[in-house]
Amino acid sequence: METIKKSITSDGCREKLRAVHDTLDVLGGKWKIEIISALSFGKLRFMELQREVQGIGAKMLSKELRELELNELVSRQVCNTKPITVEYELSEYGKTLGNIIDEMIDWGMKHRERIKEQCAESAK
Amino acid sequence: METIKKSITSDGCREKLRAVHDTLDVLGGKWKIEIISALSFGKLRFMELQREVQGIGAKMLSKELRELELNELVSRQVCNTKPITVEYELSEYGKTLGNIIDEMIDWGMKHRERIKEQCAESAK
Repeated sequence: METIKKSITSDGCREKLRAVHDTLDVLGGKWKIEIISALSFGKLRFMELQREVQGIGAKMLSKELRELELNELVSRQVCNTKPITVEYELSEYGKTLGNIIDEMIDWGMKHRERIKEQCAESAK
Repeated sequence: METIKKSITSDGCREKLRAVHDTLDVLGGKWKIEIISALSFGKLRFMELQREVQGIGAKMLSKELRELELNELVSRQVCNTKPITVEYELSEYGKTLGNIIDEMIDWGMKHRERIKEQCAESAK
């Protein structure tokens, strides 16, 4: 175990773990990654966003969006329509999360395939 | 807005959002991604893992590890030492999460740099 202990306590590993922690600090909670994923396909109004992020309540969505705005990941635009509408979109900085989202899409798709195959196997 | 609505309700986008949702179903909660990150540097005993995932309690760590085992991402090995020790490591399937972790490391490091620069700016 000595080698392993040494490896994880090395500065490089500690720094990497801290980086994951920092990322999760910004993206933490049940919803933020899903909100960002939905916005990665283009701007959405509040109600549209609530429809896309299934299961989220209006109050929670509002809170999460405010936090994402504070971290400059999402921008909010009030449109001078009648009635007034509010649109949300990823900021340029928010778009830098694209790689994380892409990898999650990729993994989720493969995971679903794997589960399907396992179900097919066990049904044999 | 019509184009956007059309774009997000297209099958491709829905499927991608579902994939993100599936991934978060497996990795959800406050701790799993941090546990997997720590194990990505090599196998660890329970106590070592608890030290690396700062802030996690033993009961929660135990619960999270059990869920990760159920999803075949982590394997648990009881070692015939005196006293008996239990080691955890990423399974081959768990290692497929490497890209997500790597992207989170990358983003977290850049995010820290950005915050530092902003602090330096505002101190001027």
